[in-house]
Amino acid sequence: MKVNGVPYRTIWREAPGVIAAIDQRWLPHRFVIERFESVDALAEAIRHMHIRGAIALGAAAAYGMELAAEHARDEELIPALSRAAALLCTTRPTAVNIRWAVGRIQSALAGIQEPHLLRQRLRHAVDELVEGEVERCRRIGEHGAALLEELARSIGTRPLHILTHCNAGWLGCVDYGTALAPIYVAAERGLAVHVWVSETRPRNQGAALTAWELQQQGIPCTVLVDSACGHLLRHQPVDIAIVGADRITRRGDVANKIGTYPKALLCHHHGVPFYVAAPLSSVDWSAEDGVRDIPIEERPAEEVHFQLGKLPDGTLASVRITPEGVAAWNPAFDVTPAELITGIITEHGIVAPTALELLRNAEFERVPRGHPQV
Amino acid sequence: MKVNGVPYRTIWREAPGVIAAIDQRWLPHRFVIERFESVDALAEAIRHMHIRGAIALGAAAAYGMELAAEHARDEELIPALSRAAALLCTTRPTAVNIRWAVGRIQSALAGIQEPHLLRQRLRHAVDELVEGEVERCRRIGEHGAALLEELARSIGTRPLHILTHCNAGWLGCVDYGTALAPIYVAAERGLAVHVWVSETRPRNQGAALTAWELQQQGIPCTVLVDSACGHLLRHQPVDIAIVGADRITRRGDVANKIGTYPKALLCHHHGVPFYVAAPLSSVDWSAEDGVRDIPIEERPAEEVHFQLGKLPDGTLASVRITPEGVAAWNPAFDVTPAELITGIITEHGIVAPTALELLRNAEFERVPRGHPQV
Repeated sequence: MKVNGVPYRTIWREAPGVIAAIDQRWLPHRFVIERFESVDALAEAIRHMHIRGAIALGAAAAYGMELAAEHARDEELIPALSRAAALLCTTRPTAVNIRWAVGRIQSALAGIQEPHLLRQRLRHAVDELVEGEVERCRRIGEHGAALLEELARSIGTRPLHILTHCNAGWLGCVDYGTALAPIYVAAERGLAVHVWVSETRPRNQGAALTAWELQQQGIPCTVLVDSACGHLLRHQPVDIAIVGADRITRRGDVANKIGTYPKALLCHHHGVPFYVAAPLSSVDWSAEDGVRDIPIEERPAEEVHFQLGKLPDGTLASVRITPEGVAAWNPAFDVTPAELITGIITEHGIVAPTALELLRNAEFERVPRGHPQV
Repeated sequence: MKVNGVPYRTIWREAPGVIAAIDQRWLPHRFVIERFESVDALAEAIRHMHIRGAIALGAAAAYGMELAAEHARDEELIPALSRAAALLCTTRPTAVNIRWAVGRIQSALAGIQEPHLLRQRLRHAVDELVEGEVERCRRIGEHGAALLEELARSIGTRPLHILTHCNAGWLGCVDYGTALAPIYVAAERGLAVHVWVSETRPRNQGAALTAWELQQQGIPCTVLVDSACGHLLRHQPVDIAIVGADRITRRGDVANKIGTYPKALLCHHHGVPFYVAAPLSSVDWSAEDGVRDIPIEERPAEEVHFQLGKLPDGTLASVRITPEGVAAWNPAFDVTPAELITGIITEHGIVAPTALELLRNAEFERVPRGHPQV
């Protein structure tokens, strides 16, 4: 996607042995590109959330393996890769995509000893993994865009109004995003859209990241506080809601950023279709009842007490908004039951949440040759 | 109520010709008392929101009339009062309580010419008005406390958990508050309570004011982001929700701070009783359908873009959280339909929203002698 008119990904190979990435800690206030010439530096950046989002983290881990190989001497190549794998897997213990990506790269190298061939094969495996992620997001975008176009035909000539929550955009992926991908693809094809962005306290990923992403692509959007969604649905045009997912159970319950569930309930109450966009890799086939089976991370109270933003002089600062000594509770996700979800937009098409099982084997059967399998 | 263990009201007569008030702009970070020796200074403080909340504003206007009289020479007393009335009524054009209070004071002085008698009668009328407001809040507190005690008996020995939104506490009144009054009265009587405080973006009246008020009274409370209320109702004990009201229609629809409606819908969905606490003066008998008949103020987008808080060095600062140039929509209130409201706690007792009409004449019949009529 574009930043100041120039196409970017969140992370990319800039030159042999040099990986570049957007340092997301300072968005939307500063656009900073960071360059990495060692796996240690990249691992440190992952640990401190310069890069965030499941799909972006997997790609970063793959690039980390590549950095380790490019900068190791031939005779130390194999131990350097083992060390890199171990290092990367400890950066964000709960990010399953990091382990998945490291494992994929290791499998691709199995049995190869010759250093030149090994590096070549590794770069190829990284490209395959990264392009596979981009392709899956693109396909989520295409399936979702078809849905948006169909909706737009039914409403006449005004722009299509879409509500989203948090950031399920390209910043959390390599490109396109998940919930925002249909919007980007539809806009590319000329559909007039406007996005309602709920700010997504406490970390403001909507107000800070989603609004910035959309603004950079020239897509009209309006930020509102999370609490205003009820009034929004009653008084403003909202044709559809699309959000991302952190985990989906096999019966279609969806864990996503805190505040998703109240929005789904409001949409249900006001007859607005509520969609979840996510790759099939987000489905946890071992989980059935989302409320029972998905553990919800409770994050530090400081995220509620403090707000990061830009001072009038342009420097960034964190301000305290609550009284000293008061308690705060900060669950990071909530679970939206399948019955409040109209459909799930996957790379293999859109299904009712209750029909997810029909796609269970699709990820193996239907991924085209040359693309990685999840 | 207490601040650092000392009883306070939001505004009071400190000495003849001297009115003191809490400057609420700096809470919870700084507790500042301001003293006024002219109606002009007090009017300026009202205009710039040192004092906020309908009931507190009415009391401030009455005290403003008193300041005008105390500092005018005998021969200029009548014109000074006319000028003060006009000045106070322009400070906050939409605050009906200011006009109501000024009108009451003027009525009490009708026909009195002698300066000493006029000043004496004015002080008496101010006391009557202010004590009437305190008494109404106290009675809301007593009716509500009886409800809380009844609920507590049904749940056994654990503390009673109450959800509130925004600040309908003593800071917006003269003392006690409306939604928080039942909590204060119940706690005075020894009931163990814990309050869930939703932060109430964009102005954070929950996180900043309600949390501070409760902390100062020694009442356990926990702040959460507005979006976390769905997850809260599913996973934590919540026995009742109590909020305030900006305006109530005769059929019981309630306009209140943005975010009230989603919380009422969630409470309805999870079977948690949802109460509104407000004096009968909040009922607009000319309004029937809240969504149709109550105009909703849209406030400046800056309230969404910026956050006020305390820097690590203790100074206060406003930080920007959204990208420059992005649009924001900022409705200040929403309407909760009567069918989502379990009951309305008034100074004359608790009624179902649909039974409000039964109290219509109560405010005239049942206010005891010596107390002002709304």
